[in-house]
Amino acid sequence: MKNIILDCDPGHEDFFGLMLALTSTEINIQAISTTVAYQTPENVQKNAMKALELLGRTDIPVARGAAKPLIEPFGLADNWRDFTGLDGANFPIPSFAPSQLSGIDLMAKTLSESAEPMTIAISGPVTNVALLVAAHPELHAKIEQIVLMGGAINTGNRYPGVEYNFSIDPEAAKILLNSGLPIVMATRDMTEQGIITEATVAKMRAIDNPVAQVAADLMENYGDFSDPDTPVVLNDPEVIAYLIDPMMFTGTDYYVDVETQGQLTRGRLVVDQNDMTGNLPNAKLLTSLDNDRFVALILDSLATY
Amino acid sequence: MKNIILDCDPGHEDFFGLMLALTSTEINIQAISTTVAYQTPENVQKNAMKALELLGRTDIPVARGAAKPLIEPFGLADNWRDFTGLDGANFPIPSFAPSQLSGIDLMAKTLSESAEPMTIAISGPVTNVALLVAAHPELHAKIEQIVLMGGAINTGNRYPGVEYNFSIDPEAAKILLNSGLPIVMATRDMTEQGIITEATVAKMRAIDNPVAQVAADLMENYGDFSDPDTPVVLNDPEVIAYLIDPMMFTGTDYYVDVETQGQLTRGRLVVDQNDMTGNLPNAKLLTSLDNDRFVALILDSLATY
Amino acid sequence: MKNIILDCDPGHEDFFGLMLALTSTEINIQAISTTVAYQTPENVQKNAMKALELLGRTDIPVARGAAKPLIEPFGLADNWRDFTGLDGANFPIPSFAPSQLSGIDLMAKTLSESAEPMTIAISGPVTNVALLVAAHPELHAKIEQIVLMGGAINTGNRYPGVEYNFSIDPEAAKILLNSGLPIVMATRDMTEQGIITEATVAKMRAIDNPVAQVAADLMENYGDFSDPDTPVVLNDPEVIAYLIDPMMFTGTDYYVDVETQGQLTRGRLVVDQNDMTGNLPNAKLLTSLDNDRFVALILDSLATY
Amino acid sequence: MKNIILDCDPGHEDFFGLMLALTSTEINIQAISTTVAYQTPENVQKNAMKALELLGRTDIPVARGAAKPLIEPFGLADNWRDFTGLDGANFPIPSFAPSQLSGIDLMAKTLSESAEPMTIAISGPVTNVALLVAAHPELHAKIEQIVLMGGAINTGNRYPGVEYNFSIDPEAAKILLNSGLPIVMATRDMTEQGIITEATVAKMRAIDNPVAQVAADLMENYGDFSDPDTPVVLNDPEVIAYLIDPMMFTGTDYYVDVETQGQLTRGRLVVDQNDMTGNLPNAKLLTSLDNDRFVALILDSLATY
Ligand SMILES: [Ca+2]
Ligand SMILES: [Ca+2]
Ligand SMILES: [Ca+2]
Ligand SMILES: [Ca+2]
Repeated sequence: MKNIILDCDPGHEDFFGLMLALTSTEINIQAISTTVAYQTPENVQKNAMKALELLGRTDIPVARGAAKPLIEPFGLADNWRDFTGLDGANFPIPSFAPSQLSGIDLMAKTLSESAEPMTIAISGPVTNVALLVAAHPELHAKIEQIVLMGGAINTGNRYPGVEYNFSIDPEAAKILLNSGLPIVMATRDMTEQGIITEATVAKMRAIDNPVAQVAADLMENYGDFSDPDTPVVLNDPEVIAYLIDPMMFTGTDYYVDVETQGQLTRGRLVVDQNDMTGNLPNAKLLTSLDNDRFVALILDSLATY
Repeated sequence: MKNIILDCDPGHEDFFGLMLALTSTEINIQAISTTVAYQTPENVQKNAMKALELLGRTDIPVARGAAKPLIEPFGLADNWRDFTGLDGANFPIPSFAPSQLSGIDLMAKTLSESAEPMTIAISGPVTNVALLVAAHPELHAKIEQIVLMGGAINTGNRYPGVEYNFSIDPEAAKILLNSGLPIVMATRDMTEQGIITEATVAKMRAIDNPVAQVAADLMENYGDFSDPDTPVVLNDPEVIAYLIDPMMFTGTDYYVDVETQGQLTRGRLVVDQNDMTGNLPNAKLLTSLDNDRFVALILDSLATY
Repeated sequence: MKNIILDCDPGHEDFFGLMLALTSTEINIQAISTTVAYQTPENVQKNAMKALELLGRTDIPVARGAAKPLIEPFGLADNWRDFTGLDGANFPIPSFAPSQLSGIDLMAKTLSESAEPMTIAISGPVTNVALLVAAHPELHAKIEQIVLMGGAINTGNRYPGVEYNFSIDPEAAKILLNSGLPIVMATRDMTEQGIITEATVAKMRAIDNPVAQVAADLMENYGDFSDPDTPVVLNDPEVIAYLIDPMMFTGTDYYVDVETQGQLTRGRLVVDQNDMTGNLPNAKLLTSLDNDRFVALILDSLATY
Repeated sequence: MKNIILDCDPGHEDFFGLMLALTSTEINIQAISTTVAYQTPENVQKNAMKALELLGRTDIPVARGAAKPLIEPFGLADNWRDFTGLDGANFPIPSFAPSQLSGIDLMAKTLSESAEPMTIAISGPVTNVALLVAAHPELHAKIEQIVLMGGAINTGNRYPGVEYNFSIDPEAAKILLNSGLPIVMATRDMTEQGIITEATVAKMRAIDNPVAQVAADLMENYGDFSDPDTPVVLNDPEVIAYLIDPMMFTGTDYYVDVETQGQLTRGRLVVDQNDMTGNLPNAKLLTSLDNDRFVALILDSLATY
């Protein structure tokens, strides 16, 4: 079992990643730092703690990271449908205290105390890990790999061609991709294949335990299943699924970078698909997903509670 | 038969477009302006005239356009394999004089004297037509549509994601795409499906007339047929083929724009594939090609000489 | 007496430049093209014609140029105080027809028919002359110099550091500054020294002729003389004053360029004041003005009517 | 006496700032973090320690900060004249160990253990303090002010208009200026008034103590006194001089920001001198210096050893 660090912004989608990790026999979350996208730092940290309380792992420290992206201003999404970031389900009140460390300090302490290099998984904007990597060159040797959800090859959910997490903090994404550290990217192109149907939610509902009921509640709040042409996509848990079962993904190594300038393309992932730059690959891009196995993993994990 | 204006930078590839147009019963080239990419203005104009001499249409005026892209400097491609732009074949010396007008003036005069709105076809960087459109708002009503080769949705042959013609003059591309005029784009994604094989060249060679022999000579100079994994792609004649037989293409209307800023994405086409901007479509993007029909059109056209 | 071409967007300020030119024995306006900043193309052309009617020079052709900046959208200034661009004075209705040529064509025709290279004076955004220079490389030899009002070294009236005319069309400014043609720039830093006081307006009013009365009317509409700490500045006529009497200015040759990218600096003039780039000067920047002589020239010119 | 944190990249110039601080009765350096511009992280940290050894303050912890700017690559200045960053003088070998903390951690620890909010002085690129501010929102209340050397209003020593420290790490500068923390900026416009003449160096040499001799050695290595038209300018110690005697400076509060995009202006300070943005001032810009008092402070400080 490998110890990992999770940096996340729960979040309905992040909840499923957290749950997958905590039920896995392959990986163990040793520390959580929280990041911000469209919810306040307070809410995001509290959401992670509420989830841990439900999932019975109040031993994992949860530290709050940066209060905003590096350069972009922080903004609550104005059209967002939930007020806490985890609307739609009842979570227990956390019985434990948040970490007294900052998110970056908790990650740094965890890495420095680890005998082995560790994996860092990120299911939100990469602000915190970019700060960690920039502020702690002495800890690079302790990072085995960074697995993140972000970037789009030929799609985009914030602007044309621009994926949400990278658009929130393009400079942080650029710092990571140019860090020289091993990077695995769950691209938006791939996570759009992570589809939850109404039938899948019904299967969650049929699992008779409180965690599965919360999962079903969350999905019902999160997804709009009324239009069969617009499938409900679950973007974050793929990062954890990759650490549990990499064989459910296909991917390719590419040289990639992020545009931080530009009027229309700020935050856009640039992929050297045809080897035009002469630069060696610096990231593995996950581009397809076996959704049946992905959904089965989620359902099997829920059934263990 | 519809009269058109052709703006081009011959060029091996542009030659085939010129030849297709001159053998077609659908369209008639009434004026040619020449633009620059990697060859000097002098050579490009001379190449167009040499081609017309060979093809027996010395009545078409050939005027020289801008000496360089709007903002980018002019640069001879340093790794380019031919010195004239039409190396590899013997062309007759032009027996006629170049137009005394500038390229933009010839286009403006042709439009203003036309009773009907005209199509402008472009098989190079769009510098000249952008200047025409910006300098002559009074002639917009005389432009029926602009059909151009340029832009890439998810490929790129200059930089990752960035197509050659648009990279040469991003500002000109932006002027056209935001002009409000009807635009049809032969994207690089589509033109990469315009493949000429060694067998096709052999068929050209077997056509017993001087034009087909020149065509075969040009293709042998232009293409490297040694690697079956790297097919030889012919990018420009699709613009003319579309005017002759639009049914050999498929395409979709999109809202598009061009990034003119950015460190990595200058010149990149931005396509609102998922209707994220709320803007109405401003261009038809041709995305696939029936290559058998395309090749047949070329061979049939060569056979008419 | 030297023939010049004037490209302008009248405008209260441009009126004074036009009047200076028409009363000068040094220069003669041979053609006028009109450009747009915050007024419609229709109004700006009409304003130039109204001014010519008043000034008794209905022989000068007035042609309408581009309908908008190259890339920036056209926008009527929403907080602008006058509706026609020449509010506050009564002008006669033009008794002559506008030129049938486009602005760029009129300039090109004038240059090509001139035996000698000519000066082009610009007192607005440089869109039209940039189009002329880009579309007509064959006419560069007919351009002796371009004298323009635009750019700021260390001030700015649109955004911090960014002058109005350059902010309206940064790409056009970049085309001109990189054209290799001799450029003289009436920088905003200098034109801010062109101050009209209430006493000066009273002297205009005391000149007993219709032109001086219109001049006084315009200045009273244009300027707010209530705050002695905010002097009323007249920006455009310096371009013409320089052609009449260059000795009322000081200036320095610099290598300059314009930023067309950037979030905060688009349109900003970049001046190599400390010779850091190694590039040779490409423009003469006028940086100071003898305002007493400038005001005396205006008053003397008004008195000739 | 107020405790401060110093973030620096010594450096001949930084040495004088360090010396001023250590001889002052107004301020006390409690921690030093080192940053990189054109010298390696190893050399810069070692230089700070060598200086402390000479100056008799081996009790001050010296921690190494980030290994490179946030986004810009690290580059040794290729035309730099010294190999260690402190060439020209003999320094003792440090008798003490470097801090085991990272530079950002040392600053965070120092702030969190301080009863009072502290001043952070920066005499190099602001990378480290930007990371501190971004990674530790919980410590903002412990920062009284940040006094930095960087940015130019109307000069520039890296590119036209662009100052060196800001050009090295524009993103870090933007993070600081938008942090909401009180900022004092020793602009390049002001520090160019900090002139050391040959006569001043002679006065250093005449002070009979080892520190003054090292100071004279450093200045002889650093400055080229052969050209009276190119005065030798000392840029960094102004930051410390301001903390000791703010009355030797004049300055103004402005709203400022940094351009991080742009082809020609990346790293350029943007100053809202004419209150055009409507934004409240976020920094005090020091714009002039009483050089006699500045030089006297340096000489008096050297005489205390
Ligand atoms: Ca997330
Ligand atoms: Ca072509
Ligand atoms: Ca004007
Ligand atoms: Ca320094």
